[in-house]
Amino acid sequence: MIDRLVEAIQRTHAPICVGLDPQMGFIPDEIKRKAFQAFGQTLEGAAEAIWQFNKAIIDATADLIPAVKPQVAMYEMFGIEGLRVFEKTVSYCQEKGLIVIGDVKRGDIGSTSAAYASAHLGTVTVGDVSFAPFHEDICTVNPYLGSDGVMPFVKECAAHGKGIFVLVKTSNPSSGEFQDRIVTLEDGSSCPLYELVGKKVDEWASDPALIGESGYSEIGAVVGATYPEMGRQLRAIMPKSFILVPGYGAQGGTGKDLVPFFGEDGLGAIVNSSRGIIAAYRKEPYAERFGEAGFAQAAREAVLDMKADIEQALA
Amino acid sequence: MIDRLVEAIQRTHAPICVGLDPQMGFIPDEIKRKAFQAFGQTLEGAAEAIWQFNKAIIDATADLIPAVKPQVAMYEMFGIEGLRVFEKTVSYCQEKGLIVIGDVKRGDIGSTSAAYASAHLGTVTVGDVSFAPFHEDICTVNPYLGSDGVMPFVKECAAHGKGIFVLVKTSNPSSGEFQDRIVTLEDGSSCPLYELVGKKVDEWASDPALIGESGYSEIGAVVGATYPEMGRQLRAIMPKSFILVPGYGAQGGTGKDLVPFFGEDGLGAIVNSSRGIIAAYRKEPYAERFGEAGFAQAAREAVLDMKADIEQALA
Repeated sequence: MIDRLVEAIQRTHAPICVGLDPQMGFIPDEIKRKAFQAFGQTLEGAAEAIWQFNKAIIDATADLIPAVKPQVAMYEMFGIEGLRVFEKTVSYCQEKGLIVIGDVKRGDIGSTSAAYASAHLGTVTVGDVSFAPFHEDICTVNPYLGSDGVMPFVKECAAHGKGIFVLVKTSNPSSGEFQDRIVTLEDGSSCPLYELVGKKVDEWASDPALIGESGYSEIGAVVGATYPEMGRQLRAIMPKSFILVPGYGAQGGTGKDLVPFFGEDGLGAIVNSSRGIIAAYRKEPYAERFGEAGFAQAAREAVLDMKADIEQALA
Repeated sequence: MIDRLVEAIQRTHAPICVGLDPQMGFIPDEIKRKAFQAFGQTLEGAAEAIWQFNKAIIDATADLIPAVKPQVAMYEMFGIEGLRVFEKTVSYCQEKGLIVIGDVKRGDIGSTSAAYASAHLGTVTVGDVSFAPFHEDICTVNPYLGSDGVMPFVKECAAHGKGIFVLVKTSNPSSGEFQDRIVTLEDGSSCPLYELVGKKVDEWASDPALIGESGYSEIGAVVGATYPEMGRQLRAIMPKSFILVPGYGAQGGTGKDLVPFFGEDGLGAIVNSSRGIIAAYRKEPYAERFGEAGFAQAAREAVLDMKADIEQALA
C-alpha cells in the first residue's frame, strides 16, 4: 500500500488527505432537508445526509488527492446506520481510485487487536467463506498496550499489503500529558515517551518484508502538525516511516509548520485537513465565492489552496 | 451507575462480569449449523450464531451476576451485522437487569472523543430527535491522548449517570513496554507511567458530582489481574475508583491474585472472565459433565466456581 501511496502523491503533487469527518453542523441545510424528507429525523436520515455530503465532496476533489481519511467516530455516533455509510464511503472512495485511511485508533490485547485488524484491514471467515468487513487500505492504531496490541495489525499489513499509522504524538492540546513525559530507558538514558514510541515504530517498520520499492515501510506514524519541533525529531528517528500529519488548518497548523515532517526527498509525510476542506464553504474567502450551495466546489478550491500552501512551504 | 453496580454486586455476592466475547471457535457447531442454514455462510449467519450463543449464556447466568462486558471488537470483526448484534446484546442484557460494560477502549482528540462518547454513553440529535446509538451503561476508555481525550466521556458520565473505566495497567504480556516506564514528574519525583495515569484517574474521579452514595466514583480504572502487585499500589492511589480487572482465568490470573484489587470494604473491584466462562464447556471439569450441548449450563457452573474462588480468596 505504501508504494501506491507514494505513487499517488507523486502523480497528484499533493501530499494531502481529505478528512471525511462529516459532523451534522457541517452539512448544508438543503442536503439535510432532503435526507430527512426521505428518511425522517432518524439515524437513517442522518446517515443519508452524511452520504450525500461525502459523495459530493469526494466527486469534487478525487482527481486532486491521493487519499482520504474518514474518522470512524463521526459515523459510529450514528450507530449501525452511520457505520453502514462509513463502509459505503470506503467503497466509493476506493472505486474512485483513492487510498482510504480509516482513522479508527483501535488497539487492545493481542487476540482483541487481531479482531480489530480483521475488521479493518483483513478478512473474517464464516464457515468456508471470507469477508472483508470495512476493508480500509490503511488504519490508525493506538500503541498504549505495547507490541502485542500492535503486532496483529502489522501482521495484516504483511498478509494483505495494507498499512498502519501508529499514534506517536497526537495533535491535541493535552497530548503532552503522558506522551511528553521523560521516560528512563534500559541503558540509563532518557527521552520523551513519544520518542520511545517512535523508536518502536521504527523497529516495527524496519522488517524488510514491510518495506516497499519506494524505500518506505507499510508501518507509519501519526504526529500532529501542531508540534513541528517534535515532528523534526521524529522524522529523523523513523526514516522509513511515512508520517500522517493531522492538525493542519482548523487545529492551528500552518504550511510552514509542515516542513519538518518531510524528508529531503520531499516525501515521507501526508497532511490531513478535515473541516478546513469539507466545511470550507462556511468561512472566507470561500463563503462569499461559493455559498452553501457551492460547498463541494469550495472544498475543491480549499484543496488547491492547501496544495499551494504546502508546495510553497516546501520550496 | 456506580451505585447500581455496587448494589448489584452486594445483591449477587458476585464481583464478577461475564465477558461476552463470542469468537466463532467458542460457539457450538449445532448453533452455527442452524444459523448458517437460515442465513448462509454470511456475516448475517455469523451474527445470528453469536446472538443465539450470547442469549443462551445470558439466560443461564443473569441471575448470578451484576454485569456483562461485551468486547466490541468481536462484533466489529463481522462488520455491520456484527455490530447490530452488539447493540441487540446490550439491549437484551439491560432488559434482564444487567449492567453493560462496553469494552470499546475508544479515545481520540476532544471533538472526536465527544462523538465516541455520544455513540456509547450518550445521545445524538438528528433534527429535533435524540437517539442513544449503542447505549452501554459503562465503557472503557484509552488515555494515551491525555485529559482532553478523556473528558468528553467524563462529561457524558455526569450528564447521563453513566460510568467509564480508564485503561491504567492492561493485562497483556507487553503492557509494560510503555505503561511501566519510569517517568519524571513536575516536582522532580518519578513513578511508572501507569501510576501517573492512575493519579489522573483519581483526579478525574474526585469530582464530587461524580461520586455516588456508595462513596465510589463513576470514573473507574482497568488494571489486569496478571499484575497483582501493581493492583495493590493502584488500589491505594485511586481510593474512589472501582477497578475493572480483566485477565482472570484464561489469561493466567487466579483468585489469590485478585485480593489486592479489593478494598477493606470487600468492594472496589469487578473481575471479568470471558472464555473461562463462555467457553467453559470445552475444558474440564465442565466438558465431561455438560458436553457441547450443555454449554450454557457449563457457563453457569463456571460462574458459580469463579464466585466461590473469589469468595474464598477474600475470606
